[in-house]
Amino acid sequence: MSEPTPLPKQLLAEFTGTAALLCAVIGSGIMAQRISAGNDGVALLANTLATVFALYVLIESLGPVCGAHFNPLVTLVMWSKGQMTHANSARAATLFIASQLSGAVAGAALANAMFELPLLHFSHHLRGGWDAVGQFTGWGQWVAEVVATGGLLFTILRAPEGKAPALVACYIGAAYWFTASTSFANPAAVMGRMFSDTFAGIAPASAIGFVLAQTVGAALGVALAQALSSKKTSV
Amino acid sequence: MSEPTPLPKQLLAEFTGTAALLCAVIGSGIMAQRISAGNDGVALLANTLATVFALYVLIESLGPVCGAHFNPLVTLVMWSKGQMTHANSARAATLFIASQLSGAVAGAALANAMFELPLLHFSHHLRGGWDAVGQFTGWGQWVAEVVATGGLLFTILRAPEGKAPALVACYIGAAYWFTASTSFANPAAVMGRMFSDTFAGIAPASAIGFVLAQTVGAALGVALAQALSSKKTSV
Amino acid sequence: MSEPTPLPKQLLAEFTGTAALLCAVIGSGIMAQRISAGNDGVALLANTLATVFALYVLIESLGPVCGAHFNPLVTLVMWSKGQMTHANSARAATLFIASQLSGAVAGAALANAMFELPLLHFSHHLRGGWDAVGQFTGWGQWVAEVVATGGLLFTILRAPEGKAPALVACYIGAAYWFTASTSFANPAAVMGRMFSDTFAGIAPASAIGFVLAQTVGAALGVALAQALSSKKTSV
Amino acid sequence: MSEPTPLPKQLLAEFTGTAALLCAVIGSGIMAQRISAGNDGVALLANTLATVFALYVLIESLGPVCGAHFNPLVTLVMWSKGQMTHANSARAATLFIASQLSGAVAGAALANAMFELPLLHFSHHLRGGWDAVGQFTGWGQWVAEVVATGGLLFTILRAPEGKAPALVACYIGAAYWFTASTSFANPAAVMGRMFSDTFAGIAPASAIGFVLAQTVGAALGVALAQALSSKKTSV
Repeated sequence: MSEPTPLPKQLLAEFTGTAALLCAVIGSGIMAQRISAGNDGVALLANTLATVFALYVLIESLGPVCGAHFNPLVTLVMWSKGQMTHANSARAATLFIASQLSGAVAGAALANAMFELPLLHFSHHLRGGWDAVGQFTGWGQWVAEVVATGGLLFTILRAPEGKAPALVACYIGAAYWFTASTSFANPAAVMGRMFSDTFAGIAPASAIGFVLAQTVGAALGVALAQALSSKKTSV
Repeated sequence: MSEPTPLPKQLLAEFTGTAALLCAVIGSGIMAQRISAGNDGVALLANTLATVFALYVLIESLGPVCGAHFNPLVTLVMWSKGQMTHANSARAATLFIASQLSGAVAGAALANAMFELPLLHFSHHLRGGWDAVGQFTGWGQWVAEVVATGGLLFTILRAPEGKAPALVACYIGAAYWFTASTSFANPAAVMGRMFSDTFAGIAPASAIGFVLAQTVGAALGVALAQALSSKKTSV
Repeated sequence: MSEPTPLPKQLLAEFTGTAALLCAVIGSGIMAQRISAGNDGVALLANTLATVFALYVLIESLGPVCGAHFNPLVTLVMWSKGQMTHANSARAATLFIASQLSGAVAGAALANAMFELPLLHFSHHLRGGWDAVGQFTGWGQWVAEVVATGGLLFTILRAPEGKAPALVACYIGAAYWFTASTSFANPAAVMGRMFSDTFAGIAPASAIGFVLAQTVGAALGVALAQALSSKKTSV
Repeated sequence: MSEPTPLPKQLLAEFTGTAALLCAVIGSGIMAQRISAGNDGVALLANTLATVFALYVLIESLGPVCGAHFNPLVTLVMWSKGQMTHANSARAATLFIASQLSGAVAGAALANAMFELPLLHFSHHLRGGWDAVGQFTGWGQWVAEVVATGGLLFTILRAPEGKAPALVACYIGAAYWFTASTSFANPAAVMGRMFSDTFAGIAPASAIGFVLAQTVGAALGVALAQALSSKKTSV
């Protein structure tokens, strides 16, 4: 660990990890919807287990290479704290985020390929926005994404040494159920899930609201973690 | 770890942890009931997984700050044993309990907000008491809370070094199913669950019986743990 | 750990652990059957999770006191290998087994109490035996108990240092599903489950066959573990 | 650990482990299909849990003896990397694979015995091939096996020291759901599953396609792991 991993390998790892994560989320969503006989509770249980297992494996196996962000908001927080492992530059952070977003799309396409669906097709699953008569709906979903993302950042920043993989995986497993949105908590997840027309998807029209709510949540989670920190911090 | 965390941070941590725990319990209860197509077994499986994952994350991430009690009976036991980490005073214990009870209400309100329900509304889920003709029902639920809380205190006091987070989470996961009450085992959980009109809730009229049973159970659990302890103890 | 725990404490621990285990197995069986809307798959999933969580907690918390056998066949194997932690005498082994069997009955009664059932009532769940016309049925269940108990002993004897609690819990979680009998693998479990008239129970008429099959399985599991052992053993 | 385990013990361990794995996969598949009231989602959840628990136990308990491959493609990769623990010869690799394939058949027969089915009977579960009018179907299943096996090899090669048992078990738990084929990822699993006429089985006519896809996937997984490796490798 004396030398940091070169940036191209880190970007490949972020691309691979985010692709694998979205492939697991969307693939298990398609499978679960197909075989659960209309019981969405069973389908979400399956989607939860697959996501928890995949997240744990991916963070353990890719963390040593790139930090295993798989999430633009995590990268932005790590960059703002000077904790990117290769180079803490705006350029590195931008490339991380580009790798995550393109990985998310690739992962969605791979999941669709396995289930013989069109590789890229948009979701029709509306999750908040303005309806036909101009009335806003879905503020609960937005509150949910604030909570989901705040909890995720809090969990990452408070995880004891070596326990982040298990804690992040368990956190998401809980948040799939206790948030009204099933906890996307990640703009790259929003990007990938736009291409899945299942219960795990999100219509593009609802995407921007989710990303805004996630950004607010990330800021609140960081603030709460700092309030409990034993170190004096000046941000 | 040379210096204990200041009391205000500990209280914030107890408030945050208890709020997050109740938010997870009640939020996942609402979600599970909505999507499980009337199969309460599926709903309780989901509620169980979400609670186990949340408890594990919260005890790991907040334990180093405040001990992660999230439960007035745990605080009372720790105080009686002189094991509160900041100051082992009646004042600290009282403030801990106040933080837990207010956190529980805040967590219930947050869960209700995400699912667009009235923030604070009472549960109608009766769990034992006197019915219309003055007959007492539900003694099985009371026995269950004695067992549930006794097992919880026993688990906490007997957990090997560093394993309390996993053991407490697993214990509650089992007790959700083997006790007739689905194991509240915590007066703060009773407080929060009064504000959820789902299968995870409890009507205020049944609350006092639950808290009394929990207190009896806690005393029995402490006694059993001491009987097995290898140390000579004078209580 | 310089001095072994006195025998009375070990017996209390074996009684408590076996009682808690059977209470968890039977209690979760009753709850699962009541709320799973006739889907036995959902009920067995719940029964599995509760058992896995309970076993893990009990072995971790009581192992340091008594070895956490909770199973007469495990005690007999440990005794034959000279590995009982207090005194490796026939008397100690006999008292261990008596504690386990009485604990199993107490645990069944406690579970029944919580669900307001008669404390002790026999199961009508036949699992192999001679039917009305004298024809033997259920040999698959007997093969299953041979496999289940062989696997359990193999798992215990091959577990790496410190991993027995997780491995035994996981093994039983798998065996609930891959054996046709849902894996009792323990004469004390047979004893307790005779007092539960649910899918988790066993009619007394089927009990002796189960115990015989378990004994054969235990011998085979020990033999297989020894065949793979790196130590020269003379038994 | 100074001396490697003798080859016959390693072969017995590979036979035992692969037999136990297939017994767990097929046994839990039969049980799950029988009791899940036609809800395949519930059945696959049960099949997933049983497989994850069994894999974890088997890799932990047999890994120190033989490396716990249980999979011809894993053996071929380890052999090509010079990492077989006894002797890195073509003969040892061939004997490993023979032990795995015969173990898989034995495990399938044992599962069938417990459920009182004919010990060896072929599956009718077609998973891709040429249909009655000569049209190829099931390319999604083949893509799925490429992904499943690539991910498995990647996980094995990237697992941090001591974490392979948990990571491999979790990976398979996720892949059961996110791949369209429910992730066989192992020619020995194909061999054993040909003898189970359940949702967990595969018709012999579809077997060769699965094995070819798995071989391609293994090569891709190894290549991706090497691309991210921090060591300079010449293959």
